[in-house]
Amino acid sequence: MKQLNFITGNKGKLTEIQQKLSPLKIKVIQKNLGYPEIQAETLEEVAEYGITHIQQTFTKPFILEDAGLFINALNGFPGVYSKYVYYTIGLDGILKLMHQQKNRQAIFRSVFGFSDEQQLPHYFIGECPGIINIEKRGTQGFGYDPIFIPNGDVRTFAEMPTHHKNQVSHRGRALDQFISFLKKQK
Amino acid sequence: MKQLNFITGNKGKLTEIQQKLSPLKIKVIQKNLGYPEIQAETLEEVAEYGITHIQQTFTKPFILEDAGLFINALNGFPGVYSKYVYYTIGLDGILKLMHQQKNRQAIFRSVFGFSDEQQLPHYFIGECPGIINIEKRGTQGFGYDPIFIPNGDVRTFAEMPTHHKNQVSHRGRALDQFISFLKKQK
Repeated sequence: MKQLNFITGNKGKLTEIQQKLSPLKIKVIQKNLGYPEIQAETLEEVAEYGITHIQQTFTKPFILEDAGLFINALNGFPGVYSKYVYYTIGLDGILKLMHQQKNRQAIFRSVFGFSDEQQLPHYFIGECPGIINIEKRGTQGFGYDPIFIPNGDVRTFAEMPTHHKNQVSHRGRALDQFISFLKKQK
Repeated sequence: MKQLNFITGNKGKLTEIQQKLSPLKIKVIQKNLGYPEIQAETLEEVAEYGITHIQQTFTKPFILEDAGLFINALNGFPGVYSKYVYYTIGLDGILKLMHQQKNRQAIFRSVFGFSDEQQLPHYFIGECPGIINIEKRGTQGFGYDPIFIPNGDVRTFAEMPTHHKNQVSHRGRALDQFISFLKKQK
């Protein structure tokens, strides 16, 4: 595979994936096609639904990703609706909900769906546990990065350069699995 | 029409609709079929997608409803994700986000989708403006009723008997339009 279509409208995700796949000499091409994201309970369902939808009009191999931040004390909120919550109550809303909350555990989850040459779907899941910081810190990355500190670090994702974030992040870990899969195919 | 299938898993909605349609001698039957609710920006899109999905397997006339609470100061949150937000951060989460917030304006919206004998879709929209109270009050109704006070009243929806709520509520108003529609069909 020389090039791979990535269905997304998110430039931040594109940058992370391009950097991760560059050693494999795969060129990642952004396709801003859009697909209905269902109100499901799991990211896997959202990805599966997206794959099926895209396959109806786009027959080349492609990947798509759905990710979410699941906060323990908030019963998994914002979860599969992370994007919507980010654009409404935002990081300040999350910090308000977490005000004086002692249990700050959270987990970032990422699910990649890959539709291969035969339109067979494959899924790759990555997780990154951590905590919600009491304030925003850092300017890199996107989304919830300024308030999330991965376990084993003192920096938020937004305080890390992309290649550091990629080593520990949910998306990086899901991509590691995707890369192993691609290597086995050769 | 002697009986009408209502696609829902929500008993509270069923009660309200049964009461509203009883003068027309229409028996409302609950069908807990379930359908994918897409992550759309409007309730209309969710209802439309639901109608199309249900029609594939269910050919009799039916109605379904999607409703949401849109809070001005929170950029329309929880909006189309009201159900999910209710089951995660809940009413206490909303009150926390609205703590010391002076702009307490909100609007409840309801969209009914009706698939008729010929499987033609019809939509009926109802709105109810009001404010978010500073605390929970009342035990009737369901969902966000204990924190919502409709304009022109001092009680929350949860402090009103069903027939009072039905007179002013978003759902009641959408149903009024549906009833006018049914009467014209006769």
